[in-house]
Amino acid sequence: MSKRRDLLYEGKAKKVYAAEDPALCVVEYKDDATALDGAKKGSIPGKGAINNRLTNHFMTLLEKSGVATHYAQELNDRETLVKKVEIVPLEVIARNIAAGSLAKRLGLTEGFQMSRPVLEFCYKSDALGDPMVNEYHIAAMGWASPEEVSFIARSALRINEILTGYLKGFGVELVDFKLEFGRLPGGSLLLADEISPDTCRFWDSKTGEKLDKDRFRRDMGGVEGAYQEIYRRIFERVEG
Amino acid sequence: MSKRRDLLYEGKAKKVYAAEDPALCVVEYKDDATALDGAKKGSIPGKGAINNRLTNHFMTLLEKSGVATHYAQELNDRETLVKKVEIVPLEVIARNIAAGSLAKRLGLTEGFQMSRPVLEFCYKSDALGDPMVNEYHIAAMGWASPEEVSFIARSALRINEILTGYLKGFGVELVDFKLEFGRLPGGSLLLADEISPDTCRFWDSKTGEKLDKDRFRRDMGGVEGAYQEIYRRIFERVEG
Repeated sequence: MSKRRDLLYEGKAKKVYAAEDPALCVVEYKDDATALDGAKKGSIPGKGAINNRLTNHFMTLLEKSGVATHYAQELNDRETLVKKVEIVPLEVIARNIAAGSLAKRLGLTEGFQMSRPVLEFCYKSDALGDPMVNEYHIAAMGWASPEEVSFIARSALRINEILTGYLKGFGVELVDFKLEFGRLPGGSLLLADEISPDTCRFWDSKTGEKLDKDRFRRDMGGVEGAYQEIYRRIFERVEG
Repeated sequence: MSKRRDLLYEGKAKKVYAAEDPALCVVEYKDDATALDGAKKGSIPGKGAINNRLTNHFMTLLEKSGVATHYAQELNDRETLVKKVEIVPLEVIARNIAAGSLAKRLGLTEGFQMSRPVLEFCYKSDALGDPMVNEYHIAAMGWASPEEVSFIARSALRINEILTGYLKGFGVELVDFKLEFGRLPGGSLLLADEISPDTCRFWDSKTGEKLDKDRFRRDMGGVEGAYQEIYRRIFERVEG
């Protein structure tokens, strides 16, 4: 029932295949890594399997807290069955600590603790470099309805609270992360895409060490080790 | 009573002086023009007087529609008495037709009619290039309270409706414009700054001809003529 069929879409870090059940898809996580709008390309051995398992772990955690996600069933190390959705063409970024583009744009030191969580929306377009947009652009361009935008914003803030608290228990600060949402055929929204060191900034709570893709983006070395460390912290305890 | 005293502030296009009454200031409009974050500098003869009279005309029109503004009294060609406010460090941009940075950022043709008005907020900082921000950044950084942001957004949309309708009567499309707001000592908000060809895009309704500062920004020639034309259209009829 879960064997993958035609390739529907190939992204930078994942492939999506049709599944036997037309309401589902198979996601395959790749080791390929890109950064700086695709200008930097490489591979992080073992990343696909780590991101697959971490994403499924976080999605399961969120489902238990009442957040509807696209997660259906882990098939193997790199493949997961998910509900088929139409992706809303927005990246939703939640930020607790200033880093990356936010720090640069607002002239803040990396590590500056925001007084409250910040959400940003970007229009998903490689050609335009995923420009930051607001609810007025989204409504005027018809990318999502105002009701969808407020559902997504409320969901992102809840997800941020749940994941921030959960990760603190493992000595990890959730600095910021990117979410994507999708629509089921009836129109209801689900959390989709992934939650992994590719899409989150994770800092060690004590040392501030980066345990995420910034090590790749910034040529810091220790990239594989960082992915393995975040994986180890969570699964050692969960499975131990 | 209205004679100007100490220079309080000198901006790119205006100087602000203390007035005898400590609750007021004198604004003096200059002919100086800058663009591209100050990289382009020049002078547009007669601009100061045109911007002074147009701003006061629009502020008076808005006051009559119940929009509270800082306008107090026109003193002469270039000088106006205004209520002293603490400027909220945000530029509010209202857009009806895609042009300039919006067209570029979203890959839209200049002239694309937005399906509804779009508001954008930018943090006023020359050093950072006035970066676009949203209500989450504003709240987290304490630049304005959430209540102030929603008052400003509602006011900007109302001002847009009033000015768009008014200008259509003169054969002018209000493409987009920038507003600033200020706080009175008690905390209530007023529309401040200016409304002029320096801060608005005005296009001739029939020909699409630009009657604003884009002629200066883009080295199109006819800069003085454009400022004079928008002035002539409005004051010829108003005073005729």
